Amino acid sequence: MTTRRQFFGYAGAAAAGAAATGGAVVALDNDTAEAPVSRTISPYGEHQAGIARAAPAVAELVSFKLGTDRAGLGRLMRLWTSDIIALADGRAAPGDTAPELAVANKSLTVTVGFGPRVFELTGQRPPGLDDLPVMKHDRLQPAWSGGDLLVMVGADDAVSVVHAVRRLIADAKPFATPIWRQTGFWDSTGPDGKPVTGRNLFGQVDGTGNPAFGTPEFDQTVWSADGPDWFRGGTTLVVRRIRLNLDTWDELTRSEQERAVGRKLSTGAPLTGTAEHDELDLEARDADGRPVIAQNAHARLSHHSENDGRRIFRKGLNYVHDTGATRESGLIFLSHQADVAGQFLPLLARLDAVDALNEWTTTIGSAVFALPPGFQPGEWLGQKLLT
Amino acid sequence: MTTRRQFFGYAGAAAAGAAATGGAVVALDNDTAEAPVSRTISPYGEHQAGIARAAPAVAELVSFKLGTDRAGLGRLMRLWTSDIIALADGRAAPGDTAPELAVANKSLTVTVGFGPRVFELTGQRPPGLDDLPVMKHDRLQPAWSGGDLLVMVGADDAVSVVHAVRRLIADAKPFATPIWRQTGFWDSTGPDGKPVTGRNLFGQVDGTGNPAFGTPEFDQTVWSADGPDWFRGGTTLVVRRIRLNLDTWDELTRSEQERAVGRKLSTGAPLTGTAEHDELDLEARDADGRPVIAQNAHARLSHHSENDGRRIFRKGLNYVHDTGATRESGLIFLSHQADVAGQFLPLLARLDAVDALNEWTTTIGSAVFALPPGFQPGEWLGQKLLT
Repeated sequence: MTTRRQFFGYAGAAAAGAAATGGAVVALDNDTAEAPVSRTISPYGEHQAGIARAAPAVAELVSFKLGTDRAGLGRLMRLWTSDIIALADGRAAPGDTAPELAVANKSLTVTVGFGPRVFELTGQRPPGLDDLPVMKHDRLQPAWSGGDLLVMVGADDAVSVVHAVRRLIADAKPFATPIWRQTGFWDSTGPDGKPVTGRNLFGQVDGTGNPAFGTPEFDQTVWSADGPDWFRGGTTLVVRRIRLNLDTWDELTRSEQERAVGRKLSTGAPLTGTAEHDELDLEARDADGRPVIAQNAHARLSHHSENDGRRIFRKGLNYVHDTGATRESGLIFLSHQADVAGQFLPLLARLDAVDALNEWTTTIGSAVFALPPGFQPGEWLGQKLLT
Repeated sequence: MTTRRQFFGYAGAAAAGAAATGGAVVALDNDTAEAPVSRTISPYGEHQAGIARAAPAVAELVSFKLGTDRAGLGRLMRLWTSDIIALADGRAAPGDTAPELAVANKSLTVTVGFGPRVFELTGQRPPGLDDLPVMKHDRLQPAWSGGDLLVMVGADDAVSVVHAVRRLIADAKPFATPIWRQTGFWDSTGPDGKPVTGRNLFGQVDGTGNPAFGTPEFDQTVWSADGPDWFRGGTTLVVRRIRLNLDTWDELTRSEQERAVGRKLSTGAPLTGTAEHDELDLEARDADGRPVIAQNAHARLSHHSENDGRRIFRKGLNYVHDTGATRESGLIFLSHQADVAGQFLPLLARLDAVDALNEWTTTIGSAVFALPPGFQPGEWLGQKLLT
């Protein structure tokens, strides 16, 4: 790790810019190489800073049960906002007992969300924001489900994440108690050092269908424009903990695996194409007249053209969970959309009904949060909702 | 993560070189910037490749119970050696069911060790290699202790680690069964992108006292020269899982914390100095005549001048372990030395007897392994012991 990180300060910011605009190839030019630049991500903006970017290398999500009233929630949001400003900048938050673990240039972001029950206190519920219905294939465990508040901390390295989470939980103590915490990881750098979509633990390229950062399509998919005023520029986040049965998946041949997904394992290209971002040809048929991308293939079912144009912005975090020497592997599925009921639920229902992947995946946790818009200096998270 | 990793291919190898030679500051010159260079670490060499370098960003250690005889162990070592060669190079090992998760340029290393019981099968036990005695402060749990075989996989990112571990466990199946697995992380890059020693979750700079890579002192400390012939160029590894009581530690003032360690929290400098690598002045006294570095300060007790010049090469990996919403934090303490009994045990006994830190730390796991020397193309790990 030492060996990896020493160039962040020199070359990281240009890379970060490229990734945030959709993963263009970055050439290391002399200007960037010579000037130390910052990997610190500003916490300020129209939207919360962690959303419109690739999945972080390391992330932790903590869900809380709220034990306070509307005014107490406001106090917590003011406190967390000041924590977030400090932590993002690599400074210790007030009261930090291990201030040296706050380090700049680690791409640290903190994202905060409100669970459905919060709106019983506050009113002004975003349209379509409610607990997801339990799907036929769901095997939900309370230990990984629900919650009134979410913090998701992402960063380049785990020490920064663990430290920030500890601070945020400590400051929440009078107001809210953790009910679950999930840690995940994602690798979105290819062997040549260039950004890639990344793979889940089945080995699949995962997230190809996303709208590109910075496009009107991305903005329309993710940011709320029609909800209550306080929620303009906010979004929602669905968190689903999906156990992957690697043992039975591995019993398949590669072509069986590719048929279930509708994409090639090697490149993530659709079975009708040659490159990852080739458009799916959902009409294409093989010599026997069968669809090349099967009717129950995951890529077909989740494609926006099959969902009345509805899209989502997907991220994944791989997880492993050990019980003694036994390891469970899975995916923390994250989906951003302006409207859960309008964009996500129809897709979820389709996938639950017929997705070929259901045979090797089991959703064991589920939660939904409304993520307030970002804040500017002097403002705080959720201010318009809570004042 | 995308944002962080895209320059590895361009700039990483120079950085890796600097870190491996002790953490010199690396300037990004145009030559390095223009030529894509490799972060792949060769698995070949006089010593196993993962040892004489800083702690990896992510690592997993798996301890196995051996269920085969000497010949079976030899077969497993041949198999693991070919796995290691492929994985280090970012190629899928034979039989890999998720070959695309093998990615080059991730600084992947695999280190293999033999527990004390192996030498009941093979003879030729390295001198001083045996289970550690149980210390007065130990609260060892079988779930984190012992084992006949160790693999430790380290890399820049968790996907590579998880994938490699899965492959190695699968190939061990006929021969050995995992009994524990521990995952840890370490951050050895400062906010300016330069290598640093890194900190544990108490916030302490941890590992300052190590001999510098590439020095005769390092080589004498780590590599066996006197043991059985097969073990020349090998080393031993002590793995201790140390639970840190962050809550009670945090109740101390900073000066109480610094007194327990004997170093400043801000820089890691000894209380008698100003810079991290300043030599400790163990004779210095304050105005009241008391030692500036207390008699029971960790830095004094672990200093080689207090241990008849005996040294060790320490690495740490931070860990967190969640049970529901409750988190345990700690340190996977790793110590390399040529001779456990000669170098490590006297130090351990001193620390157990009087180390001020014992009040906030509890060792809950302990294991010892002999790490065979490295291998060249055509050779395999442990070949001289097992043929």
